[in-house]
Amino acid sequence: MAAQTESLKYAVVGKRPIRHDGVEKVTGSAQYGADMRLPGLLYGKVLRSPHAHARIRSIDTSKASAFLDGAAVVTSADLPPSDPVAQGVVLGQTPSQNILAKEKVLYKGHPVAAVAAGSPHVAEEALSLIDVVYEPLPHVTNVEEAMKPDAPILHEHWTEGKVFGSEGTDPTNIATRDQYVLGDPDGGFRDADLVFEREFRTKSVHQGYIEPQNATARWAPDGRLTIWCSSQGHFGIRDNTARILGVPIDRVKVVPMEIGGGFGGKLAVYLEPIAAILSRQAGWPVKMTMDRTEVLEATGPTSGSYVRVKIGVTQGGRITAAQAYYAYEAGAFPGSPITPAAAAVFAPYYIENVQIDGYDVVDNKPRTTAYRAPGAPIVAFAVESLIDEIAEQLKMDPMKIRLLNVATEGTRRADGVTNGRIGAREVMEMVRSHPHYSAPLDGENKGRGVGLGFCRNNTGMSCVVANVLTNGSVSLVEGSVDIGGSRTAIAQQFAEVLGLPVEDINPLIADTDTIGYTSVTGGSGVTFKTGWAAYEAANDVKRQLVARAAMVWDVGEKEIEYVDGFIQHKSDPELRMSFKEIAAMLPETGGPIVGRAGVNPGGSAGSYSANIIDVEVDPETGKVEIIRCTAFQDAGTAIHPSYVEGQMQGGTAQGIGWALSEEYFMSRDGRMLNSTFLDYRMPTSLDLPMIDTVIVEVPNPNHPFGVKGVGEASISAPLGAMANAIYDAIGVRMRELPMNPPAIVRGLQSAD
Amino acid sequence: MAAQTESLKYAVVGKRPIRHDGVEKVTGSAQYGADMRLPGLLYGKVLRSPHAHARIRSIDTSKASAFLDGAAVVTSADLPPSDPVAQGVVLGQTPSQNILAKEKVLYKGHPVAAVAAGSPHVAEEALSLIDVVYEPLPHVTNVEEAMKPDAPILHEHWTEGKVFGSEGTDPTNIATRDQYVLGDPDGGFRDADLVFEREFRTKSVHQGYIEPQNATARWAPDGRLTIWCSSQGHFGIRDNTARILGVPIDRVKVVPMEIGGGFGGKLAVYLEPIAAILSRQAGWPVKMTMDRTEVLEATGPTSGSYVRVKIGVTQGGRITAAQAYYAYEAGAFPGSPITPAAAAVFAPYYIENVQIDGYDVVDNKPRTTAYRAPGAPIVAFAVESLIDEIAEQLKMDPMKIRLLNVATEGTRRADGVTNGRIGAREVMEMVRSHPHYSAPLDGENKGRGVGLGFCRNNTGMSCVVANVLTNGSVSLVEGSVDIGGSRTAIAQQFAEVLGLPVEDINPLIADTDTIGYTSVTGGSGVTFKTGWAAYEAANDVKRQLVARAAMVWDVGEKEIEYVDGFIQHKSDPELRMSFKEIAAMLPETGGPIVGRAGVNPGGSAGSYSANIIDVEVDPETGKVEIIRCTAFQDAGTAIHPSYVEGQMQGGTAQGIGWALSEEYFMSRDGRMLNSTFLDYRMPTSLDLPMIDTVIVEVPNPNHPFGVKGVGEASISAPLGAMANAIYDAIGVRMRELPMNPPAIVRGLQSAD
Repeated sequence: MAAQTESLKYAVVGKRPIRHDGVEKVTGSAQYGADMRLPGLLYGKVLRSPHAHARIRSIDTSKASAFLDGAAVVTSADLPPSDPVAQGVVLGQTPSQNILAKEKVLYKGHPVAAVAAGSPHVAEEALSLIDVVYEPLPHVTNVEEAMKPDAPILHEHWTEGKVFGSEGTDPTNIATRDQYVLGDPDGGFRDADLVFEREFRTKSVHQGYIEPQNATARWAPDGRLTIWCSSQGHFGIRDNTARILGVPIDRVKVVPMEIGGGFGGKLAVYLEPIAAILSRQAGWPVKMTMDRTEVLEATGPTSGSYVRVKIGVTQGGRITAAQAYYAYEAGAFPGSPITPAAAAVFAPYYIENVQIDGYDVVDNKPRTTAYRAPGAPIVAFAVESLIDEIAEQLKMDPMKIRLLNVATEGTRRADGVTNGRIGAREVMEMVRSHPHYSAPLDGENKGRGVGLGFCRNNTGMSCVVANVLTNGSVSLVEGSVDIGGSRTAIAQQFAEVLGLPVEDINPLIADTDTIGYTSVTGGSGVTFKTGWAAYEAANDVKRQLVARAAMVWDVGEKEIEYVDGFIQHKSDPELRMSFKEIAAMLPETGGPIVGRAGVNPGGSAGSYSANIIDVEVDPETGKVEIIRCTAFQDAGTAIHPSYVEGQMQGGTAQGIGWALSEEYFMSRDGRMLNSTFLDYRMPTSLDLPMIDTVIVEVPNPNHPFGVKGVGEASISAPLGAMANAIYDAIGVRMRELPMNPPAIVRGLQSAD
Repeated sequence: MAAQTESLKYAVVGKRPIRHDGVEKVTGSAQYGADMRLPGLLYGKVLRSPHAHARIRSIDTSKASAFLDGAAVVTSADLPPSDPVAQGVVLGQTPSQNILAKEKVLYKGHPVAAVAAGSPHVAEEALSLIDVVYEPLPHVTNVEEAMKPDAPILHEHWTEGKVFGSEGTDPTNIATRDQYVLGDPDGGFRDADLVFEREFRTKSVHQGYIEPQNATARWAPDGRLTIWCSSQGHFGIRDNTARILGVPIDRVKVVPMEIGGGFGGKLAVYLEPIAAILSRQAGWPVKMTMDRTEVLEATGPTSGSYVRVKIGVTQGGRITAAQAYYAYEAGAFPGSPITPAAAAVFAPYYIENVQIDGYDVVDNKPRTTAYRAPGAPIVAFAVESLIDEIAEQLKMDPMKIRLLNVATEGTRRADGVTNGRIGAREVMEMVRSHPHYSAPLDGENKGRGVGLGFCRNNTGMSCVVANVLTNGSVSLVEGSVDIGGSRTAIAQQFAEVLGLPVEDINPLIADTDTIGYTSVTGGSGVTFKTGWAAYEAANDVKRQLVARAAMVWDVGEKEIEYVDGFIQHKSDPELRMSFKEIAAMLPETGGPIVGRAGVNPGGSAGSYSANIIDVEVDPETGKVEIIRCTAFQDAGTAIHPSYVEGQMQGGTAQGIGWALSEEYFMSRDGRMLNSTFLDYRMPTSLDLPMIDTVIVEVPNPNHPFGVKGVGEASISAPLGAMANAIYDAIGVRMRELPMNPPAIVRGLQSAD
């Protein structure tokens, strides 16, 4: 079932063409980072810390250097000391200590040294010849433990008073605190008939993209560095690498390879600066690829967390006040998503009196990075679970209480932002009216749950250049890495403006030297911002076409109009040319036409999602089977509905994995015990039913085609929906993730 | 000695910055076509005809296919039959029969079949398993023989009457004839006091670029073909390959690799379509590289020729009439440069009554392609030799008779074109006033000669896109392959407009999908047309910067001016920002700035060159030593004088090689006997003195910076200058090239 209303107005937008890169990808011929070959290519490998926390007493690379005949061996001493984000306090920027450890290792897997050799096997042999003397230190891998006054301290030079603006002077693992107090929370709770307060806990989970991180670097003798890698934004890779290496941004070129999944995990740099300094030292290009254990142990998962939510309601179900306290693990360096969590925590609802306290806390785990709707699923799990519990207490329909408190245009979000033309009500109403919501669900140990989700979505700078070919096709040069089909979604917006078939548009992603600055493929921003740039570039082409036609016909430009792929005189029907006809005339009418746009548009809009999930729980084994799942989402205008649906299904699947089975299982000595895909259990197609999708179109009035981002909100709703469904099935309220079989069984046992 | 007058006016133009690609090239780290590596790469090899002329009775590839386990083996049957330039009569377009022979082989080295295998050695083994049955035919490898009525005919279906518009009906090797009759030649000769008529002959010579042809092709499962190769114009490679393969141009992407010399020889396609169909058949990328023998035997040399020139003069030295008859070898398919020869033959002079008859004649040699100032050196050799002979007869100074007849602005060239602001007089006057011209030259067997040269130069479409980085540098995306330093010469023109240091401009050459159509790096057109595009793109940037500043300052755009790298309010001195300052503000003022231009400018201007050369001839061995050589050239504005000088020196060296030692030495059975650089004797640095250069700047009024092309004219002057110097030294008038030791000795013997 689809609820397309808005996108049906268009000729190209809203259709479902085959993606331009489809055949390349399904036939395995698309080129990924690991496919890089260059003359003289060396292979780099990383030596990683075996300890969760230790002081580095010494690193002796002399035997490895001798073995490699003086070729490339590097440590943090080969990085400039003056990285301005050495403290790692700038969100989205990687501190150089995470690239190669300085003084201390902060997690098992933390890079300590690296080598390059003519084969990966020789490189591994050389790693074994590096002598590192460690002084192991006490470690902490849990956010609640890490906040305690006597916790092992990761960054001894941090004191609350000095670095982070609070009063204390003792060293701390608390990197930063966000607080929002709006309205009168105390008064609101006093006005409540009932006040509920519950604690929730979640574990670290990983984005689990198929393709491991990789990077090939060539540091040429002229000081220009070229990097080929998979990322969610090659400009970000360029800027971070340049900063860490202390070179100007225009000396670094990053060439985007195809990306095998990112989900936020491919925004940060890991191998790129190492490959670069290995190449500089060796004088040859160096390629590095991670294995799965390196990915799990040393690239960013998202936070484990502790969350406490308090909600006051009237007997009628109106929320009078709400409070959220949450502490997110940042891993070894600050940067957990506590700020977007504040936007998301109560986003579906308008709450007059509200307080939020968010803590960003370091511990001895890999540094967290963004994961689909960063910060939002954890707090949505808590709030949606508690709303469900309140509804039960009040004997209200769980969607009715949500709709009673729904956030609408003009209301104020809990982080102070005023809501624009949001689709929370439309999504909720679609859920309540959907056949799934009222379908019978017979049999024992079966249950149904609903949950809402939200992602605020981002924008940023973006560039598009359009080259009109003489055969009437258009080469569309973009800076946005394509993860989910954005080549086609952007081409559709370009084609819509010019009235062309989308098959005549050939989109491509250019390197950082070739296209202007384009911000990351993240925050569900690409279809919004790069679609906007394509719209502007198409209009730039249109203006030039009109000028050419005016010249050819010897009439004024104002007498000409461009309609549905034809350029025509407004009054003389003899004067009419198709796009293809005028394209063929470019050489003799002044040369090629190049359309261009550089934009940084405001007005991106958050997206709301919801799930209805039916489960059956096996009370003996604790196994949860999903019987039926429907995903709802406000997509704004769905530019390519199939890709919107794919995002909804993918996000829902990841949310279900987070809810049911995924976790970093840590040993007492601070090691991840399940660092392979055999043991880190993500849902597969065998674990899930077909996820039905319902697109709700509430167009964004700030975008030429009404686009909202759609990539993320869908991961937030399933966590609470799953907990609510399990409760509905077996009467056990699960407030910790994952809700795996042992946890379910424990829950059933304690309920008994 | 330099005569810079015009370029001194500028801040960046006219300076001699280090070229952007310099370090990469001198350190050997620049990436050429032969450096390509791709996963699964196969190596292609070509089976070539052992005969100069033969009918192909059959090709049996079954044994090779079996040996390769069904992998790639191709013949002309794998190319579409319907190539629209199958006759090869379109200049600059390669007929598909030259890619893989159909029905007949037309020269020794003509490709017949090709294979691809996992290693070059296996591919060569597979070639040996292809059985081709030939029926050898009589052949002809000399233009005068080829024109005879009883000559072996290459293309039997051509009849003069049918295909080329003349009256005859017999098959012929004459592909086309150009004729120009202007004024009253007969009357002019009647008015002459003296009429001279002489015959001249030259041999086929090769461009002799260092880097052999190469191509790597990947034909992806989605039908998109990517080609990496070295060329003088990747758009031309794309268009020719697409046409030969019968696919739309937007399905073919050509990625330009660095080029190790071209001189006109890398405009045509050879390996590209073969690598493409091998890749399509094999399902993997295929790389092909030629060896030197393949380059010499199967890529385009320039024509061997027969020339007859007749000039009538008054006793005072005024030319009353002139006539040129010339027949150029085209090799196996038409396309010799008889049209540019008509422009060049009498270009330094204004001749009221003139006739030109040019013949394009096929014979059993590799198809000719462009070579530096195509067609011009051969006729310049003839005319400059004859002018010298006339001057001697008239006892006039050889520069005086030239200046007496010099072509000037407004006069009509012998091919009917009206001269613009040409620099013929300025070059001649610079020669006559140069110290070298009047320097003493003592000793036996020494002589001095002068000669003039000309190239008409071309223009074409060109695109430039400029991305402004936030650190104030600019990434300059061009479509012009850089052979002689054009990255820097174009960056200088861009930097001049914006008042920036050229070091802050980072030029790069983009592939055919990424930048708009840009015509070939040929006809000395790049600095003219792509410099123009850079000028327009810089102005596009400037307009946008003014708009940003107007927004920031909240003033009208008309109140703002851009001067010397600063944007400033015309009356308020407080409002002033450097380019770097406003670049840093791009994110918050609307996003990136992208400048763009697509141009097809008219107004390109021909360039004149001259040489003074002193030689010493050893009368026993016939060896000619060059004692002193000065090259003069009108460069318009010399954007980068060092590169202008480099072009002058390089062209002069090639002209000297053509004059003294280079030739295709053909056996009776139609094979080239000297197909290596050991035997095909090009001048080396040991053979030449330092060539002094004198830049004469007569700016082109049609170009924003006064640019004329400078890459070619310099090759034309040395041939006549050498013949005149040798005559001056030993009194023998050489009218055939090369003037190698045996020829000199024969000349001395017959003079005795």
